Amino acid sequence: VTSVAVVMAMRSEAAPLVASLRLREVADGPEGLPFRWYDGEHHGVLVTVATNGVDSRHGVDNIGTNPAVLNTWLTIEQYRPDVVVTAGTAGGFAARGAVVGDVYLSEGDFVFHDRRIAVPGFTEYGFGRYPSTDVTGLAGRLGAKTGVVSTGNSLDGTEVDLQLMAANNASVKEMEAAAVAWVCWLSDTPVFAVKAVTDLVDGPADTAEEFLQNLTMATGRLAATMVELIALLGESGWPPE
Amino acid sequence: VTSVAVVMAMRSEAAPLVASLRLREVADGPEGLPFRWYDGEHHGVLVTVATNGVDSRHGVDNIGTNPAVLNTWLTIEQYRPDVVVTAGTAGGFAARGAVVGDVYLSEGDFVFHDRRIAVPGFTEYGFGRYPSTDVTGLAGRLGAKTGVVSTGNSLDGTEVDLQLMAANNASVKEMEAAAVAWVCWLSDTPVFAVKAVTDLVDGPADTAEEFLQNLTMATGRLAATMVELIALLGESGWPPE
Repeated sequence: VTSVAVVMAMRSEAAPLVASLRLREVADGPEGLPFRWYDGEHHGVLVTVATNGVDSRHGVDNIGTNPAVLNTWLTIEQYRPDVVVTAGTAGGFAARGAVVGDVYLSEGDFVFHDRRIAVPGFTEYGFGRYPSTDVTGLAGRLGAKTGVVSTGNSLDGTEVDLQLMAANNASVKEMEAAAVAWVCWLSDTPVFAVKAVTDLVDGPADTAEEFLQNLTMATGRLAATMVELIALLGESGWPPE
Repeated sequence: VTSVAVVMAMRSEAAPLVASLRLREVADGPEGLPFRWYDGEHHGVLVTVATNGVDSRHGVDNIGTNPAVLNTWLTIEQYRPDVVVTAGTAGGFAARGAVVGDVYLSEGDFVFHDRRIAVPGFTEYGFGRYPSTDVTGLAGRLGAKTGVVSTGNSLDGTEVDLQLMAANNASVKEMEAAAVAWVCWLSDTPVFAVKAVTDLVDGPADTAEEFLQNLTMATGRLAATMVELIALLGESGWPPE
């Protein structure tokens, strides 16, 4: 593996990783667009961290599936990476063994839980089910858990969202991964997720509060895992064992 | 106005318009991607109809916001149109005067109703509120209604979705417009919507059944309106009066 693109949503999610790897901002990144790219070398791998940047209309990070689609597409066009990693924070399901601070790698297919289309043929399209590379071996070497990653554009989860996530055996819930995976599937680029758990979807705490409270801790763990993971990818062939 | 790009999701939505305008499929469209583009001249205007194409994993049309983002971006890159029209079918709100078969043009800002993010600063980002060109005058000349267009990735609407749509005074609900408007806003391209009502969101019928039952009628009306609208745009300056 010689080139890895890491697509991330929030500045605060990306900052510890960009600092750990001493990446530099790409001066000639996507013109006129909010996305901010950082690159550099680590263990012989060209690492690009592609963040979704800020929405100037609202003054906050571009989160959710729409910016993830365009940022992923442009990053793949520019770098033709060997693999894309959709990395960030997530809610975990205690019912599936998640604990705040856990780092999960993706397993099986990426799914959406907020695309309900009850027209013949479209229900499965709504779920998406775009494939993750099998990174079970990599997870074992990193001491990370594996599970199904489920994506939706809301931070909370309604009763219906939760039912659909349960039906798909989701271990973690976040807001970009399946959209990144869709673009990777379109462009024949291997993809997997690395997600650090900030809050428990099925726990008693308020999601937004728990998310903000654990964000720094979780992004620190995410960065530590990613640094180790990129070194392992640099040493290994593809797919990783 | 010399160039109009019409972004549409489903083949069945686009077919009557492509036929009416005698457009030809673009042979060198976006390589390796599902999107299908058709272009031709009508009343001195270069018209491109950019459809989202088919998802080969599921065998159905690419609907919803993710394909709309990428297709809109690539269409703008290729054609640099004077204006983008997000056109298609929609559910209407009887409470706001909608009747099946109505054609609506967009008014005010485009909103999302399925991006709930209760973190300080992010709630408004979730709604989006990317602007529509003021096409009130155009709607009057076409005998079309105007209203707020609200976008989500599900065909149905949960209680929470309906509450958020009501709070934003939505007249029609569909699955792509706000995402198209976001990309247009990023690239400083004027945008408005033309949506034909297939079903009543707050009516008694099952949405999927009513949608399928009225699809042919609604797409016929949509095509007739679009043909007239493009002729008007060809005669007028920008923004249209």
